[in-house]
Amino acid sequence: MTMVEAPNTFESEAFNDLLRTVQIAGTTETVMYGGDRNFEPLGEVFGDVAQLAVIGWSSQGPAQAQNLRDSFRSAGLDTKVVVGLRNGSASRAKAEAVGFSLADGSLTTVEDAISHSRMSLLLVADAALVSEGHALMDLAPSGADIGLSHGFWVGHNQVTGRGVREDINLTGVCPKGMGPSVRKLYEQLSGINVSVAVEQGGQDALDRTLGWALGLGAPYSFQTTLRNEWRSDVFGERAMLLGGVHGLVEALYGWKRQHNVDPEGAYLQVVESLVGPISQTISHEGLRGLFDRLDEGEKEQFIVAYNAAYPQLKNLTEKLYHDVSSGRELEEVVSDNEFNVRMTQVDGTDMWRVGELVRKSLSSSSEARVNIDPTVAGIYIAGMMAQVDVLRANGHYWSEVVNESIIEAVDSLNPYMRARGIAYMVDNCSITARRGSRKWAPIYQAWISQGILPVIDGVQSRLDHRDYFADFLNHDVHGALDTLKDMRPKIDIAVS
Amino acid sequence: MTMVEAPNTFESEAFNDLLRTVQIAGTTETVMYGGDRNFEPLGEVFGDVAQLAVIGWSSQGPAQAQNLRDSFRSAGLDTKVVVGLRNGSASRAKAEAVGFSLADGSLTTVEDAISHSRMSLLLVADAALVSEGHALMDLAPSGADIGLSHGFWVGHNQVTGRGVREDINLTGVCPKGMGPSVRKLYEQLSGINVSVAVEQGGQDALDRTLGWALGLGAPYSFQTTLRNEWRSDVFGERAMLLGGVHGLVEALYGWKRQHNVDPEGAYLQVVESLVGPISQTISHEGLRGLFDRLDEGEKEQFIVAYNAAYPQLKNLTEKLYHDVSSGRELEEVVSDNEFNVRMTQVDGTDMWRVGELVRKSLSSSSEARVNIDPTVAGIYIAGMMAQVDVLRANGHYWSEVVNESIIEAVDSLNPYMRARGIAYMVDNCSITARRGSRKWAPIYQAWISQGILPVIDGVQSRLDHRDYFADFLNHDVHGALDTLKDMRPKIDIAVS
Repeated sequence: MTMVEAPNTFESEAFNDLLRTVQIAGTTETVMYGGDRNFEPLGEVFGDVAQLAVIGWSSQGPAQAQNLRDSFRSAGLDTKVVVGLRNGSASRAKAEAVGFSLADGSLTTVEDAISHSRMSLLLVADAALVSEGHALMDLAPSGADIGLSHGFWVGHNQVTGRGVREDINLTGVCPKGMGPSVRKLYEQLSGINVSVAVEQGGQDALDRTLGWALGLGAPYSFQTTLRNEWRSDVFGERAMLLGGVHGLVEALYGWKRQHNVDPEGAYLQVVESLVGPISQTISHEGLRGLFDRLDEGEKEQFIVAYNAAYPQLKNLTEKLYHDVSSGRELEEVVSDNEFNVRMTQVDGTDMWRVGELVRKSLSSSSEARVNIDPTVAGIYIAGMMAQVDVLRANGHYWSEVVNESIIEAVDSLNPYMRARGIAYMVDNCSITARRGSRKWAPIYQAWISQGILPVIDGVQSRLDHRDYFADFLNHDVHGALDTLKDMRPKIDIAVS
Repeated sequence: MTMVEAPNTFESEAFNDLLRTVQIAGTTETVMYGGDRNFEPLGEVFGDVAQLAVIGWSSQGPAQAQNLRDSFRSAGLDTKVVVGLRNGSASRAKAEAVGFSLADGSLTTVEDAISHSRMSLLLVADAALVSEGHALMDLAPSGADIGLSHGFWVGHNQVTGRGVREDINLTGVCPKGMGPSVRKLYEQLSGINVSVAVEQGGQDALDRTLGWALGLGAPYSFQTTLRNEWRSDVFGERAMLLGGVHGLVEALYGWKRQHNVDPEGAYLQVVESLVGPISQTISHEGLRGLFDRLDEGEKEQFIVAYNAAYPQLKNLTEKLYHDVSSGRELEEVVSDNEFNVRMTQVDGTDMWRVGELVRKSLSSSSEARVNIDPTVAGIYIAGMMAQVDVLRANGHYWSEVVNESIIEAVDSLNPYMRARGIAYMVDNCSITARRGSRKWAPIYQAWISQGILPVIDGVQSRLDHRDYFADFLNHDVHGALDTLKDMRPKIDIAVS
């Protein structure tokens, strides 16, 4: 693996006033600043677009259809947003409830919607894209844009070796949160960040992709490719965003119990510390900021944990990246779906029953009740750093690396675990994420229990005596995170 | 998946007196009875074979080279057994120490050995077969036999889509134990069972394959195909032979501790019960025999555990079979080897440190100290039954199903865990097995901890209320195991 240089930046006359060239840890990226919610530039790129179709009404569909409809209206545009649903879809009533209607043609069949739209956003479930993606695309008129909000289908095409029609544009706007947040934060005048990609297409496709991102209300739009997006996404959710962090807390809870901490105390010291002060401190003060907060004794514990964990988790994380980029993880998800492999319970163990009781008893001023546990923080941050290093080594842009390894974890996902436990976090995500998390959580747990905690306990020796922590202190990630921390939506994602 | 009927039996004039048509649970298989150690029939099939090459000197190489040399001598044959090693191989001295020599040509280079032999047994590591298998095969004269002791390479060729030369025979004799046991039990006049396969070749190739099996001293040789062999082998070691049983004991140890059993007690009730009385009772009295031994209260516990475990483990085991038969598991092993994914410690957790102390304190009359734990037995046997059902549904012969799911577990592998813990069992196996066990143990552990033990504890409901235990009582496996239990080597594999 070699370090891939940051790619060229891009330009768009229509959005010139919103595009900024940003220095991130010595690399250059183009970021679109949409935070002032001026939708006027949409006129320039959607002026000749009579109709845009949103296909599907699960997570992203309702949010994107409504946001785009509202933004086009704000911009004084005639572009019609139509929702395409299968005949007999149970979602019809939901779409009608927010104003899409058969009468005015803004609610129609999938076939009608795609075949009459200049741009069609395929926001159906991954499994539906696998089985119907090519057939849906075949409905589009020549020269149309096919938009995706996730690179899964591009990854699946890599596995099957099947390409897409050459006479269409394939583009992506991938929001950094679930559909309901995309809508809610739009209504709150904040919006949610996205990454944008043009997989196939020229300047006009890029222009409309940026317009789509702006229309969603994204305060910051970062550049990526769908190939990088699906890899970092499928990888990240198996690693520290979902699977890895689940394995981590299972392992550490068992370890605290083994050291005679009572169940409630173990839950507080592990889960509550992680999703409370550790996540919040990382969010506001960064990774090194968290370390700086510790007292001398805690710093020592952090360093011991970090040095025990990093080389093991780096090795595991590299393996995971290969399993993802080879396409094997996606093949497994497709196979699991086909053969109805059960979605096992993820909060079946004792610790989550304890957790429920603990959460009930925690008052709203709970922050005062738990501190940063330096061992939990040391292993957690080592896992994040392993993820950062693997993504960078595989040529992902800094914005993607930091978003998919750190920001999404502490700002978007961990709050779900904090509110209602691990299942609430994992099972609010996509099937691909839920399956991946179920597979990788136990593997992370085993690596941590078998190879990291015994080193911290002094009953197993370290793999080597390199000072990984010194690399951490001097890492480019701190600068990158500093830059990107300022590019967050005004309003945090709230968990109800 | 449909139930595949048992295949046709086979015939061989040369070994006619040793071949028996055996009824196993209503199906018919041909089994070669070699237990009387009459090597005379070898003359008929190896009379025109001037030289047989054994390539490699790791686990199977030393055993098979010596056994065949000794058997050919007993039969009064001139067939020369030559060992082929790479130039500069560190194994040269070991081969010389048991009588193979450069001087008489019985020790030579790989190239020389294969290119001058009518039959070449490629007994190198899986990774070497992946990188060099085709090149080695290309050295063989047209019409030669290429022999394998494991179908891994056939599975890998499935993945890459690369076939083998059409002008050679591809055959297999796969011993049901590691190389040292193949040699030791030969010297003890018992021998070890094998399965035989002709992947490519006609009657003469089958004759020589049976001769190879007889020459190894196999008391019973069962029929298979290399395609079935690698699937059942790679599957079985990930399931209850290694990975599954490791996950099981980790989960159950944690569960006993959670129920306030002290560490020593938990180790005894879980591991020692499993590898002691549970394995021994299954070995001598079968699966239903074990159940019959329990008192009324224990029977109830067994049934509760069985019914909680079977549907979950059946689902997981089916998934595992798909992951194996698709080729993904082999691709992952090849990738892990290529990228040096670490072989993590498998006995790093607390329970194995406790186990070491417990084993030290156990006297030789340890049987008296532990009973059959009915919950451990119920889940363990449910896992075996899931494995049996999945293999049968995928068309594996009964002999293979019972050997790879039950007999190999209780007779060949669990004794290693009993003697020195989990790592001694797992890490005495192939790289493919060691990697697979490391991956699947945590996954089994998670399914058992998250979805089975909470049902047994009454804090989670059962998936359904079907009486899986009734299916168990009336299962064909009991008849099959009865038949196959009598076809065991005279001497058990001993663990030093």
